[in-house]
Amino acid sequence: MPRPSRWNDIVEAAAEAFRTKGFAATSLEDIASAVGIWKGSLYHYIDTKEDLLFAVVREPAEEILVGLRELSQMDLPPTEKIRRATRSHLKVLETNFVYASVYLQEIAGRRRMKEWSAMDREYLELLESIIRDGIAEGEFAPLTNPRIATLGIIGSLNWLTHWYRPDGPLRADAIADQFCDMFLAGLINRTSSAVAAKPSKPRATARKTA
Amino acid sequence: MPRPSRWNDIVEAAAEAFRTKGFAATSLEDIASAVGIWKGSLYHYIDTKEDLLFAVVREPAEEILVGLRELSQMDLPPTEKIRRATRSHLKVLETNFVYASVYLQEIAGRRRMKEWSAMDREYLELLESIIRDGIAEGEFAPLTNPRIATLGIIGSLNWLTHWYRPDGPLRADAIADQFCDMFLAGLINRTSSAVAAKPSKPRATARKTA
Repeated sequence: MPRPSRWNDIVEAAAEAFRTKGFAATSLEDIASAVGIWKGSLYHYIDTKEDLLFAVVREPAEEILVGLRELSQMDLPPTEKIRRATRSHLKVLETNFVYASVYLQEIAGRRRMKEWSAMDREYLELLESIIRDGIAEGEFAPLTNPRIATLGIIGSLNWLTHWYRPDGPLRADAIADQFCDMFLAGLINRTSSAVAAKPSKPRATARKTA
Repeated sequence: MPRPSRWNDIVEAAAEAFRTKGFAATSLEDIASAVGIWKGSLYHYIDTKEDLLFAVVREPAEEILVGLRELSQMDLPPTEKIRRATRSHLKVLETNFVYASVYLQEIAGRRRMKEWSAMDREYLELLESIIRDGIAEGEFAPLTNPRIATLGIIGSLNWLTHWYRPDGPLRADAIADQFCDMFLAGLINRTSSAVAAKPSKPRATARKTA
């Protein structure tokens, strides 16, 4: 019978080992010894190493997905939905940094396990349909490719696991706001008269020489 | 003495193994057996598995970095530099998909090896200084945080290794153009009168209820 008293320790040790050594290189012995139990005792809790990976990443992955499902149903303009989705995605990454890093490094886009592919796909489709709605309603640029834009946004968010430091100076909310300013309004300065209009093709500008 | 005739086979087999099994889980035996040589023969070519990782990822990593170094020196407006940097980054990922995937999954942002950290950092700083120049010249929005914007762009680009299929319908150039439209001009539709001005904070819009 599972003994809940050690279960949290086991999941935490597994998360730390998966993050630092990678899932493939981590053995059940590594995890058992980090917790201070025999490897055989692990089988009171799990059948395979995959069960531990699932236990580690399930909560943040579901939290991100459930948040987006709820947001999708709200009556809000698409720009606001993109802002909120970005903020809540990064908040979950910040709060569950080790677990989320394991999910993104080991699972996302790797098509390893059916249940995760389904979650990945649902997340992608929910975000993409916000962008589709934005285009249909005239709020987003008509030439936007919703799938590519969605994958670009998801990439920016998930790439945090490669550079973000939970003990660093930047907080998830500030990063989310900066990302959204770029995704939604673009880098180009609209307050100056120097540059105008949406460029859908590279164009020569006043500064270009020759 | 290295025998160049098998060297390319070895690097290719290593790339494929690193990509599918991960660097940590791949043994030198795996690679030797994929090439059809004895493990001992590998030591004619390399000292450690890290040497093989280096051999696999060095070329695309350097190609991306050298391209950005050259671009940085050109007399072009920052928007055009961002477009070209994006296009050439994605072109290298497309052309060297397996090798680049290994680099990004195993090395980027992981601080594992000094020479790679230095390359990562130089790339980040070159792209960031293009954005800084853009802000200084008034071409980019003054409230942009250049570091966060840079990491957002790099994330979108590198995340391709999680979803891009070299045999799929999308080509790198088309993805680059779509990404740049979003990074530079933003998703918000400027041709309609529905939405205007750069939002630096979440704001209520006409569609918002209650």
